[in-house]
Amino acid sequence: MSISTLQTKLELHRQQFPALANKTYFNYGGQGPIPQAAIEAINNAQEYIQVNGPFSNQVNAWVTKEVEETRNAIASELNTPSDTITLTEDVTVGCNITLWGIDWQQGDRILLTDCEHPGIIATAREIGRRFGVELDTCPIMATLNAGDPAQVIDQYLTSRTRLVVLSHLLWNTGQVLTLDKIVQVCKQANVRILADAAQSVGCLPLNLADLGVDFYAFTGHKWWCGPAGVGGLYVHPEARASLQPTFIGWRGITVDNRGNPTGWQPDGRRYEVATSAYPQYAGLRAAIATHQQWGTAEERYQQICQLSKYLWEKLTQLPQIKCLRTSPPEAGLISFQVDGNKNRQLVEFLEAQKIMTRILLDPDCVRACVHYLTLTSEIDRLVEAIERFFSNT
Amino acid sequence: MSISTLQTKLELHRQQFPALANKTYFNYGGQGPIPQAAIEAINNAQEYIQVNGPFSNQVNAWVTKEVEETRNAIASELNTPSDTITLTEDVTVGCNITLWGIDWQQGDRILLTDCEHPGIIATAREIGRRFGVELDTCPIMATLNAGDPAQVIDQYLTSRTRLVVLSHLLWNTGQVLTLDKIVQVCKQANVRILADAAQSVGCLPLNLADLGVDFYAFTGHKWWCGPAGVGGLYVHPEARASLQPTFIGWRGITVDNRGNPTGWQPDGRRYEVATSAYPQYAGLRAAIATHQQWGTAEERYQQICQLSKYLWEKLTQLPQIKCLRTSPPEAGLISFQVDGNKNRQLVEFLEAQKIMTRILLDPDCVRACVHYLTLTSEIDRLVEAIERFFSNT
Repeated sequence: MSISTLQTKLELHRQQFPALANKTYFNYGGQGPIPQAAIEAINNAQEYIQVNGPFSNQVNAWVTKEVEETRNAIASELNTPSDTITLTEDVTVGCNITLWGIDWQQGDRILLTDCEHPGIIATAREIGRRFGVELDTCPIMATLNAGDPAQVIDQYLTSRTRLVVLSHLLWNTGQVLTLDKIVQVCKQANVRILADAAQSVGCLPLNLADLGVDFYAFTGHKWWCGPAGVGGLYVHPEARASLQPTFIGWRGITVDNRGNPTGWQPDGRRYEVATSAYPQYAGLRAAIATHQQWGTAEERYQQICQLSKYLWEKLTQLPQIKCLRTSPPEAGLISFQVDGNKNRQLVEFLEAQKIMTRILLDPDCVRACVHYLTLTSEIDRLVEAIERFFSNT
Repeated sequence: MSISTLQTKLELHRQQFPALANKTYFNYGGQGPIPQAAIEAINNAQEYIQVNGPFSNQVNAWVTKEVEETRNAIASELNTPSDTITLTEDVTVGCNITLWGIDWQQGDRILLTDCEHPGIIATAREIGRRFGVELDTCPIMATLNAGDPAQVIDQYLTSRTRLVVLSHLLWNTGQVLTLDKIVQVCKQANVRILADAAQSVGCLPLNLADLGVDFYAFTGHKWWCGPAGVGGLYVHPEARASLQPTFIGWRGITVDNRGNPTGWQPDGRRYEVATSAYPQYAGLRAAIATHQQWGTAEERYQQICQLSKYLWEKLTQLPQIKCLRTSPPEAGLISFQVDGNKNRQLVEFLEAQKIMTRILLDPDCVRACVHYLTLTSEIDRLVEAIERFFSNT
């Protein structure tokens, strides 16, 4: 297909995403625009619940099926059996389930990278305070353009390290960590590994069954463009028995014929708690299906890489912009610094023209994300607006 | 106002609740029917997010305001300052925040009643296993028709009891515990108290500031008729410092200008985690406002009591039905047993005619709930259907 035919096809596909109609959008790593099919699926689910319930045997059976189908849809897209999937409210809850579910002993150590999200750092510190666990931080940010993250992690493992916490796709610099190699390093050292997959799910093609990672926490509302409030956690079948549920409710337990708790659900449901915004589940499935209509996860990723290279090349040509990467990005996140520390001013200047980017604090930079949904004309518009920003200031 | 004028006014008010149009509904204690205004508020919020974001400075500021307004609306209805309120996904999460947030020491004891929800029992058991905490269970179910729950609890407190866990309004028998007296008993013993308020919020008029309870966990989707997926936790200002956050994310922490965590939010936000189904927040506020248009919490509660008395009186006249209570209910839950252990058959018989009730396992019974929204004609229809059930079988 020629490039112009592809762009026409994409423009048609994009019409399913109302948020894309009135702006130039580069914040997919913050939240993805929800497709119309997902909004309709949510509304239909809400209507089903109200017409047949809201609380009735019929609706309760339907909710059970919704939960199951949602775990199936996620599992299928991540190439893993659905019993490895837990539905959560967001990626942070998935990380917390993992961090609190380990049987910590005083003197154990957690190894984090220096690129983790503040919420995860705060959780690890609280685990440290409560259980006498020590935290180590390894310098991964410095490997963005040279060096081997797997080797850095290997160097920072100690005999007391029990868990490595890292992001598969770094939210700040956009680096993709070589998770397969890091998993090997951890396996050799008999250390479990939790990946914060906030940015990788929906962006990278994934095969969790092959990857061998122990815990993989993700959200549906970023690159998958699902509704806010639905995420998930993958737990490797061999890691399940050693990961105890912490926040507990009726969804995760089994009961006897008097309603007394008798144990945990045999699969990923054991970490689910209680009533959620169930209509959103249908929304996430519809969002995933919308992407699948466009192409496979691999095809979408290739498109993302082409577009991010296109943006990166244009940005490197601007003298007032310094891209953090010295080579084209490995995924859809492009981070750059603005001369004169004008990151925040630039983001505000752009947003006033309905071009959405965001600032990050560490490293201090602007982040623009491209999805497979991004048009080259949008990238051109962003770059032109940045040029205007400099000619205006 | 005459009874018939009131019923006409109520029939008009009920038209705002789509779920009530095609059935006879008695499962308010399972899930409340959402009013049209709440559905529209959710849709408007989703549209606002898509038109102006989904991720942008403008939407992020709007979400912050939504969270604040939702805490304010809840706090106002519960008569407590809004800094005591945490937004959660459901009541169970609120109970878990409390149970896991206490600095447990080996040998500490938790006192539960014998009427608690299985998810909460399972959480308490897991706390017991992890921290060497012992559980005691006191016989509250037996005080339904005689006896003093506060006295029973007092008898079961030990010098090592640190937390009492009980439901304000028991989900199985419908009994309202004398929480003010129980709080006094606990204060005298220097024991904290967590109330599972799944059934009481939206049903009983509440003044949490006066009540003095330490922790009060609730949901918006039952008696408040809000969307599933939004609940909350009240933490007494004096209990906050001793209740540590467990599941932790960006919403609960403060950060410095590099994004490093520096501490907890000063108020109830410290127990909030990360991204939620934000559009639902506007839905809960709209649901609460819909009830307020009808009457005050006290007026709604009086109406509930009148209707539950009406249903209870009718049921006590049926020879094949045994109401658990020997006097009129204190709130909207009416539980009864069917001759020949035909509870399940009756519920299914009723649901086939679009009359919604539910079974409970302990005690084995049928539960019918009346809200202020219930019409006496609906109660008549339920009772007639039960009579038909017996004449058919």
